[in-house]
Amino acid sequence: MSTSAAPPAPLNPAAIRASVERLLHDFLDDQEQGAPDLPELSLFIGQLRAMLTAGGKRLRPILCLMGWYSITDRTPPPAVWRAAASLELFHTFALIHDDIMDKSDTRRGRPTAHRALAAQHAGHADADSLGVNAAILLGNLAFGWSYELLHADDVTSAQHRCTWPLFNALRTETLIGQYLDLVAAGSPDADPDIAWRIIRHKTAKYTTERPLLLGAALAGATGQQLQALSDYALPLGEAFQLRDDLLGVYGDSGQTGKSTLDDLREGKHTVLYAIARARATAPQQRCLAENFGDPRLTEAHAEQIRDVLAATGARTITEQRITDKTAQALNALSTAEFHPAGPAWLRHFALAVTARTT
Amino acid sequence: MSTSAAPPAPLNPAAIRASVERLLHDFLDDQEQGAPDLPELSLFIGQLRAMLTAGGKRLRPILCLMGWYSITDRTPPPAVWRAAASLELFHTFALIHDDIMDKSDTRRGRPTAHRALAAQHAGHADADSLGVNAAILLGNLAFGWSYELLHADDVTSAQHRCTWPLFNALRTETLIGQYLDLVAAGSPDADPDIAWRIIRHKTAKYTTERPLLLGAALAGATGQQLQALSDYALPLGEAFQLRDDLLGVYGDSGQTGKSTLDDLREGKHTVLYAIARARATAPQQRCLAENFGDPRLTEAHAEQIRDVLAATGARTITEQRITDKTAQALNALSTAEFHPAGPAWLRHFALAVTARTT
Repeated sequence: MSTSAAPPAPLNPAAIRASVERLLHDFLDDQEQGAPDLPELSLFIGQLRAMLTAGGKRLRPILCLMGWYSITDRTPPPAVWRAAASLELFHTFALIHDDIMDKSDTRRGRPTAHRALAAQHAGHADADSLGVNAAILLGNLAFGWSYELLHADDVTSAQHRCTWPLFNALRTETLIGQYLDLVAAGSPDADPDIAWRIIRHKTAKYTTERPLLLGAALAGATGQQLQALSDYALPLGEAFQLRDDLLGVYGDSGQTGKSTLDDLREGKHTVLYAIARARATAPQQRCLAENFGDPRLTEAHAEQIRDVLAATGARTITEQRITDKTAQALNALSTAEFHPAGPAWLRHFALAVTARTT
Repeated sequence: MSTSAAPPAPLNPAAIRASVERLLHDFLDDQEQGAPDLPELSLFIGQLRAMLTAGGKRLRPILCLMGWYSITDRTPPPAVWRAAASLELFHTFALIHDDIMDKSDTRRGRPTAHRALAAQHAGHADADSLGVNAAILLGNLAFGWSYELLHADDVTSAQHRCTWPLFNALRTETLIGQYLDLVAAGSPDADPDIAWRIIRHKTAKYTTERPLLLGAALAGATGQQLQALSDYALPLGEAFQLRDDLLGVYGDSGQTGKSTLDDLREGKHTVLYAIARARATAPQQRCLAENFGDPRLTEAHAEQIRDVLAATGARTITEQRITDKTAQALNALSTAEFHPAGPAWLRHFALAVTARTT
């Protein structure tokens, strides 16, 4: 994705990704070697490594480091890298469990964890159930490890006091956001406010605001700086999710690694869909009612839904909202003083993630 | 259960239970009040409160306090109570997820979390799936909160260094123990070594050793004391699980709150079952092969399995092993010096939990 294309120096997303991946792989090595009486760990760690290697934008680690560098140009201490890697491990947990709940078969162009683990137990009497249950456990391991990684011996008490409340808040918000998403999925009377609440908790706070604040708080940000970063992050996170929703329906699955049928089959309650519902004519309403959320939706019927989303204006309106929210995010950057290069990075990042194609 | 009946003073299990429950309810109050923009939390917290109120022996908190008092008679600091309550919250998480994986309908005489949450979403198009998914999230909330509770601001760095590695080890062991349990369940060629490994990781270390060591480490136990406590706890935990397996098949469900069909229907791979398999005649083998692990097992067929377990001698041998393991646990207490009252408490506890009927 384009965040790796020439951001203002010295913030280097490719280098951040490489550092975080090295830290994660070293941590998993330590876990494996530290438990010789638990040889089964290799199966789980192997699956986690495969997921980490298969891709991922590492948005949260990059935002965490961006939070740090917005406040200072000092070299980040281990606690910052730990927070960044911990966010990625927590995210891996969230993806594993979300895929179970959504019954998704693929992620990043590969089988999801529960499908991969079912395949690895093909000889078992009920391999599909075992795959799901083992993936629940895999998610739990990653979740627990995200805590273990966050607070190791090289993290001071003062640093712990910065990260602990933010990480705990992020955890609760994300889990409740996922619950809202589950309840709304496939529910015909869901309203747009629910879609916005899901975005707020599951994406805007989790993906954007909390990671940015983690890095900034560790750098000793003032209250005014933290507020400005929140005011930047929340609309940006909303714009990011609207882009994600558009890519989920209109994206190039070869680039995104995700089928453009999944969201439609799941009946994912997006703002895009809510706008279409509010503006649809009677025949368009019927098309949505008959096809949206159908787990066996064909590509031909998916194309009919896409046509309705476009014909109602929902697609265009969503694009316009992305533009507006991005502008709102950028405006917030002038409400506090940052380290001189900070706003340039944040501006570059905002434009990159809201205009992405993957 | 009989641990509340007159242990040597000042260790008072009823008072420990009351303190831990108060701490947990206060913690849940704080979570609820601290997130006014997440009203959905009430649903989850209400379910956790119901589970905590429905019963539970609080074995792990009691063992944690017993670990403390084996080393010193000082008043336990907040960190000890936090560790005790954290163990109980972690256990609640483990029960919620185990019940999902085992597809159990009841726990402590009430609907399991996923059944209760399905009932609370009865109007939803797929209430059963939503119940399971919401219960996965509920377990995750309890899991995350067990970490949050363990390390609050009133816990010092020195105390954190005591509890953190033990709690992290306990987490990994328990999750892998559950995996071993899942793989072995219903598997006809499982061997007794697997049953012993499951007991070791899922019960002996998780339920007995780690909680005891947490309290003892916080009290500043020496290496020799910690070793003696491990040597006490591991065979005791094994005896505890063998008793649990017997109660799961022969217990009084009115007292245990658990159906005596569940383990047999699930095909739970216990030592009791492994002994019977190794000693069964051809007709007895057929009876086991036909009925054990049948999800629709009737009470009449369950009675046939119970007869085979008794006729092969597996029931008597298991009782004898409980006696032997308990003796081994008690012998370990003479291998280190403890606070004068410590060994009496540990002896009382060992006899109470291995001879229990609930």
